[in-house]
Amino acid sequence: MSALSAVELAERISAGALSARDMVEACLARIAERDGEIHAFVHLDPDYVRAQADALDRHRKAGRPIGPLHGIPVGIKDIIDTADYPTENGSPLDRGRKPKVDATLVARLRAAGAVILGKTVTTEFAFINPGPTRNPHNTAHTPGGSSQGSAAAVADGMIPLAVGTQTAGSVIRPASFCGVVGAKPTHGAVSLHGVFTTCEPFDTAGVFATTLEDAALILDALIGHDPADSRTRPAPGPKLLAATRAAVPLPPQFAIVRGPTFADAAGPDLEGLLGEIAETLGERADMVDLPDAFNSMAATHRRIMTVGFARNLAPYLKRDAEGVSQVMRDAIAEGMATTATEYLAALDWKAGLTAGLDRLFDRYDAIITPAAPGEAPEGLSSTGNSAFNQLWTFVGAPTVTIPVAKGPNGLPIGIQVVGRPGEDGRLFRNARWLQQRLAEA
Amino acid sequence: MSALSAVELAERISAGALSARDMVEACLARIAERDGEIHAFVHLDPDYVRAQADALDRHRKAGRPIGPLHGIPVGIKDIIDTADYPTENGSPLDRGRKPKVDATLVARLRAAGAVILGKTVTTEFAFINPGPTRNPHNTAHTPGGSSQGSAAAVADGMIPLAVGTQTAGSVIRPASFCGVVGAKPTHGAVSLHGVFTTCEPFDTAGVFATTLEDAALILDALIGHDPADSRTRPAPGPKLLAATRAAVPLPPQFAIVRGPTFADAAGPDLEGLLGEIAETLGERADMVDLPDAFNSMAATHRRIMTVGFARNLAPYLKRDAEGVSQVMRDAIAEGMATTATEYLAALDWKAGLTAGLDRLFDRYDAIITPAAPGEAPEGLSSTGNSAFNQLWTFVGAPTVTIPVAKGPNGLPIGIQVVGRPGEDGRLFRNARWLQQRLAEA
Repeated sequence: MSALSAVELAERISAGALSARDMVEACLARIAERDGEIHAFVHLDPDYVRAQADALDRHRKAGRPIGPLHGIPVGIKDIIDTADYPTENGSPLDRGRKPKVDATLVARLRAAGAVILGKTVTTEFAFINPGPTRNPHNTAHTPGGSSQGSAAAVADGMIPLAVGTQTAGSVIRPASFCGVVGAKPTHGAVSLHGVFTTCEPFDTAGVFATTLEDAALILDALIGHDPADSRTRPAPGPKLLAATRAAVPLPPQFAIVRGPTFADAAGPDLEGLLGEIAETLGERADMVDLPDAFNSMAATHRRIMTVGFARNLAPYLKRDAEGVSQVMRDAIAEGMATTATEYLAALDWKAGLTAGLDRLFDRYDAIITPAAPGEAPEGLSSTGNSAFNQLWTFVGAPTVTIPVAKGPNGLPIGIQVVGRPGEDGRLFRNARWLQQRLAEA
Repeated sequence: MSALSAVELAERISAGALSARDMVEACLARIAERDGEIHAFVHLDPDYVRAQADALDRHRKAGRPIGPLHGIPVGIKDIIDTADYPTENGSPLDRGRKPKVDATLVARLRAAGAVILGKTVTTEFAFINPGPTRNPHNTAHTPGGSSQGSAAAVADGMIPLAVGTQTAGSVIRPASFCGVVGAKPTHGAVSLHGVFTTCEPFDTAGVFATTLEDAALILDALIGHDPADSRTRPAPGPKLLAATRAAVPLPPQFAIVRGPTFADAAGPDLEGLLGEIAETLGERADMVDLPDAFNSMAATHRRIMTVGFARNLAPYLKRDAEGVSQVMRDAIAEGMATTATEYLAALDWKAGLTAGLDRLFDRYDAIITPAAPGEAPEGLSSTGNSAFNQLWTFVGAPTVTIPVAKGPNGLPIGIQVVGRPGEDGRLFRNARWLQQRLAEA
């Protein structure tokens, strides 16, 4: 199953060469075989999955129009409300929580014909206290987080597509660690109505897939205006699948950026990886240093994020402090101690950082930068470091990671490609060009 | 001069029946006669005013197209940047401050043909520490604040139009106290780029005029998108002058609302005034009580406003604490002590208040509510109470005040008409209908 992309599977289902029922049976078989070891799913009801698939097959056989994801199984991070499955936010305090309605993004997936296969493991409230998920490439290693079940399930070939969210590095990092494509569109592109809120200015839904085209396919279904989420915009979607398939008008020019946290966070292989990419790209890429003003970005990102935690998790702390992990409580306490003027001053950084990057995007089509400090670290107690993701989440830029290398333990390493906020289609087109160029090298 | 409205004056100038030079000479004569007593202006250069007028006359005589405010003198509150006059923000710490460029709204006035006549007195940083301006109806009484010079200059017939700003009640209250029309459009309608910032979520530019049509005329020139102010929207303007002149499709239905602070703040005449208006309107109006949830609105408004002060005035305090008044320092200290989560929780009230008012606007075309606690109080040490303005500023609703009564000391009292945010044109049309109906009674 993992040999076929979601785009190909959707074409076969649409043509009647594959039924939705056979599609989900293949997924369920793989999950039955593997998930006892990987622990990617937290809620999965095979009967309910089959019922969805059968209904979709009846729909298609009746000759009615079908959506672009007809019959395609999708995994949903367990901070995203689903009306049929529980949504427990990775917390014992939400055990058995059953939302009455789907999150907007789930409703959009159903409308596109997707099968909501199951809920995937999230860290506690999408922060860093890990769930039980293991890295499919080596189960002694973390899959990353917070969208750990979504990343691992796609990486292991259990499902072709999954949805996650990112507030620091919760899509791009696990995608890199698990060797799949991860994509986080521009902040506000996908409605978060019905998704657990941790930090309004940063929270962004993203996706996991095995190819850039697949990520584009599902994002095309997810992106759109939702009156219930004021961060979304009433504008036409970016048509990412078409953009990914489009030829570049001119060969793109890339800025290779180590990023403000490189010196502290980069593993031993990163400098060499960037150097190889620079060599492969030749005159199509320049090594570029960001201005010094970017250096305090990490602390500023954390200040805003912890205020978000304080704001959104206070009810849980009040209800049952013991049900909240120490690392989460510490972050909440940090946010509680922040004053309003400190918070507003931190938010002001966004404009300055955006202006600095704008100058870069005036000269370069996209930025190439590490997706993570290296391969997934050993152990399940930490989900790894989001240092290479915070800046891009802060400014709300669209970003993708594509697997490009292996680390010393043979685990995958991704490279991150970043576009200008709002230019998601151009990013996908340039990332595809880069992927082909690196593959040819 | 005060017998002619800005609309009529603009028509006469456009027709060649009145020169811009004669127009400004009339204003300058009135100011020379009266402003020694009223103190409405803080910067005024008669030669510069004449030079502007002469250039406009030459422009018109050359047969070139002219703007809707061609030759009309406008007073500008001294927290609004002007390239030619100083802008001192009502503070000794900004004495002699000379901005290099006009605020966007000043540039828009110049583009419409207006004469920037002079800068009008503001309280210190547009808060409550008063300037020297007196009420033209009785110089022992306050003109209100913070846009005190703009209100008094229009009320005294020195100028036909003036611009102010409102963060609590700084346009509607002084307009009511001075017996002129005041209008505060929807939050974000007028660009505040180049205007002193006190509190981003509340600051709104407004205008003073002798008629609703005149207020509409100048707002039509001011309202519009400005890429430099993200609160403005790229949408067509509301065409307020046309709306003000338009017949109502059906007689409007009004909700008469005492407002959440009525019991504490209303002067002795307000209940009777609302009763008279209700009687005049008969079946066209209902007395409506707001839900109890509105009762803590004043404290919530103050929390957000003082955080704004803390954020925006910190550099002044740091530079010279003695140069900041005690009342301003107290408000800044209050804002400094507010935590980020308290601030965000206060901002959350806006959605709840807006939803509550939305239900009212589903059933009523506009709200009638006091503009101020009564007539202007005696004394110059206080600018009066903004209790009747905070709610409408908080939710960003468009509001106008029209003079309708006299108080026990013979000073004017206005009544406030409030529309749904974004429906400024409908508000002006309904306020004009109300004004005519009250005049007929």
